[in-house]
Amino acid sequence: MTVLPKVLVVGSGGVGTISALSLCLNNRSDVTLVVRSDYDKIINLGYTINSCTYGKLEGWRPHHVAKSVAHAAETFGPFDYILLTTKNIPDGPTTCEDIIAPAVTPQSAIILLQNGVGIEDPMIERFPQNVVLSGVSLIGSTNYNGVVNHKRIDSVFIGDFRKEPLPGTDKVIDTFIEIYQNKDRSLNQIDRADDVNLTRWTKLVYNSVINTITTLVDLDVARCQINGANDTLFKPAMKEIIAIAKSEGIMVPEETIDKMIHIGDGFFYPPSMCVDRRKNQLLELEIILGNPLKVARKNNVDTPILSTLYPLLKMTQFKIKEQIGQVTIDENDYTGNSDDYPKIFAEKNAK
Amino acid sequence: MTVLPKVLVVGSGGVGTISALSLCLNNRSDVTLVVRSDYDKIINLGYTINSCTYGKLEGWRPHHVAKSVAHAAETFGPFDYILLTTKNIPDGPTTCEDIIAPAVTPQSAIILLQNGVGIEDPMIERFPQNVVLSGVSLIGSTNYNGVVNHKRIDSVFIGDFRKEPLPGTDKVIDTFIEIYQNKDRSLNQIDRADDVNLTRWTKLVYNSVINTITTLVDLDVARCQINGANDTLFKPAMKEIIAIAKSEGIMVPEETIDKMIHIGDGFFYPPSMCVDRRKNQLLELEIILGNPLKVARKNNVDTPILSTLYPLLKMTQFKIKEQIGQVTIDENDYTGNSDDYPKIFAEKNAK
Repeated sequence: MTVLPKVLVVGSGGVGTISALSLCLNNRSDVTLVVRSDYDKIINLGYTINSCTYGKLEGWRPHHVAKSVAHAAETFGPFDYILLTTKNIPDGPTTCEDIIAPAVTPQSAIILLQNGVGIEDPMIERFPQNVVLSGVSLIGSTNYNGVVNHKRIDSVFIGDFRKEPLPGTDKVIDTFIEIYQNKDRSLNQIDRADDVNLTRWTKLVYNSVINTITTLVDLDVARCQINGANDTLFKPAMKEIIAIAKSEGIMVPEETIDKMIHIGDGFFYPPSMCVDRRKNQLLELEIILGNPLKVARKNNVDTPILSTLYPLLKMTQFKIKEQIGQVTIDENDYTGNSDDYPKIFAEKNAK
Repeated sequence: MTVLPKVLVVGSGGVGTISALSLCLNNRSDVTLVVRSDYDKIINLGYTINSCTYGKLEGWRPHHVAKSVAHAAETFGPFDYILLTTKNIPDGPTTCEDIIAPAVTPQSAIILLQNGVGIEDPMIERFPQNVVLSGVSLIGSTNYNGVVNHKRIDSVFIGDFRKEPLPGTDKVIDTFIEIYQNKDRSLNQIDRADDVNLTRWTKLVYNSVINTITTLVDLDVARCQINGANDTLFKPAMKEIIAIAKSEGIMVPEETIDKMIHIGDGFFYPPSMCVDRRKNQLLELEIILGNPLKVARKNNVDTPILSTLYPLLKMTQFKIKEQIGQVTIDENDYTGNSDDYPKIFAEKNAK
C-alpha cells in the first residue's frame, strides 16, 4: 500500500475548490479542504460544480472537509503540502501566516497560490525551515454559496520563492506537479515557473493597474475603457509597473501591456478587487500595489500614477474597514491640528 | 420716484437664496428669484430661513418668484443684473450660457457667483457686449426643500473678468456692491476683488484638491486626514495648483496651503462635490479641475497628482451620468479593440 501525499487546501473560493477537485480527480493525493462559512452545507450537500473542463458535478466533496485549519491539522494531518488559496490581506484581521500556522509542521511545503509580490517575505520569516513556493493561477472561477462556476482551464505556474533553495525543494516541486497535473493537459495545466518573479510581476501588470483603478471608480473594465482609460491611465500605469520590475532586474516584456489591455476586449466585467469593494470585503491592496511601491521607493523609480492611486485606495480600504467594524472612529477624538489625526488614529486603533 | 435696479437671481440653492435675501433686506433693488423644482411650494409657503446673520424667518419670499428664466424675463424683466448662482457644469445637459440666455438683454450685467476658473470664456464668447463679472463667495449655506440653513456670514468678492473692461464696467460694479452690501458689515461683506484671478485660484487651492479627493474616495475631509491625506495628497496637490497659477503669473501665496488644509480642523464634513456625488448629482469637475489642467498643459506644468485625479473623476462623472440617464451604454456596441471604445461612445452619444 502506497501512502499518498497529504494536501491541505486552505481557502474554498473559486480557486481553492477547483484545485481540490483537480487533485482529487487525479487520485494521487489525499485532499483536505478547509471550508469555514459553508461547512455544514458542504458536509451535507457537497458542491455543485459547473466546470469548463470537469463538467457538471452535483454533491461533490473532496476526501476530507475541515471546519478550520486547526480542525484539519488535528483530524486529517500532518500535511505534506499546504496550498493557500485565500486572499492575502496583511492589513486584515488575520495574516496568512497566522491562518496556516496550526497546520504547519517541519515537513509541510507551503504553496502560496495568490496574487501580488512580496507575499513570501513574512511567510519565510515565520517558517524559515519550510519550503515556500509561488503559485500563479490563471483561472476564471467563482464560488457563491457552494455553487462553483469554472470558466477557464486551471493553469498554474509553480516555482520556488527562495533564490537559495532549501535542500530537496526540486523534488518537492516535482511531486506537487505530479499529483496536481491531470493525465490530460486539456483538463488542467500545471507547470514549473522558470522565473517566479517574472511570472508574478507579469500578472501584476494587470492587477496593480486594472484591479485598482476599476475598484477606485467602481466601474467595470469596459466602462473605464469607454472613458479613455486605456490611454489616460492603464497603459502609463502599466509602464510604471514594468519600470519597477526592471529596477529589480526582472524584465517584463513591453508587449505585456498590449496583451493585458486587450485581454478582456468585448466583455463587461468587474475584476475581483472591484467585486470585493462592491461586497464590502477587504482589498488585496498591500500585496498588489503597496509592495510594488515599496520597491519603487527603494530603487527611486518614478511612479506618478501608482503613487496617487495607492493613498486613494488606502482610503477606500479604510472605508471598508470602518463599514465592517475593523476600525472605529469617535469623531470627538479628532480635534485640533488635522496633521495629528493619523497619530491619534494609530493610538486609538492599536492592537 | 426712483426706479430700483432689477436683479435676477438664477439658482435657488443655499447661495442664491441668501443672496436674494440680502438684496431684498437692503431694499435698494427689485429682486426676482428663479425657483424651478420648489416653485409651487415657495409661492404658497415661502422659505424657512435659519440665518447666522439675518435670524429666523418663516414664509420669506423675495419680491418676485419665477418658475424659469424665460418666465422671469417675460414677467419681471428686463434685468440690470443677472446673478448666476447655479452649479457650473459645461458637460451637463444645459450650459450656463443657455440657462441665462432668455433673460440677457444688451443692458444686463452678468455676475458668475460660481466656483472654478475659465468659466468666463464661454460666457464672454456668447455675450460679447455684456459686462461679465466674477463673484467669489464664502458662505456656509444649504437649501433642502425650502429650508435654508445659513451658518457663515455671506462674503463675496466682485470684480471684472475682462482684462480690458467694457466702458462703464466700474460703475456697474460699484452699483451692484451698493445694492448688495447691507448697511451693517456684520450682516454681509460685499467687496471688490482687486485681482479676480488671484481670488479665484486661491479658492481653487481648496476646491481642486479637497473637493475632488473626498469625492473620489467618498469620505469626509477628516476621515481622509486620519488616513494621512494631508501629506500624501492634499499638500502636494495644492502645490500643483499653485504652480499652475504661477505659470499664468498669478501668485497665490504658499501659506494658502496651510490655511486651506486646516480650515476645517476638528469638523467631519463632506465638501459640496462629495455631497453631489452622494446625491448622484453631476460634479463641477471641468471648471474645478479640467480647466486648471488645460492651463497646466498649455504651460507645461508638471501635475502628477491632479493629472491622475482628473481621468478618475471623469469616470465618476460618467457613472453619475449613466445613473441619471444622461448617457446610455448598450454593451453590444462595444466589441473588438477596446482602444476604439471612446470613439464608439462619442458617436453613440453625439447630440
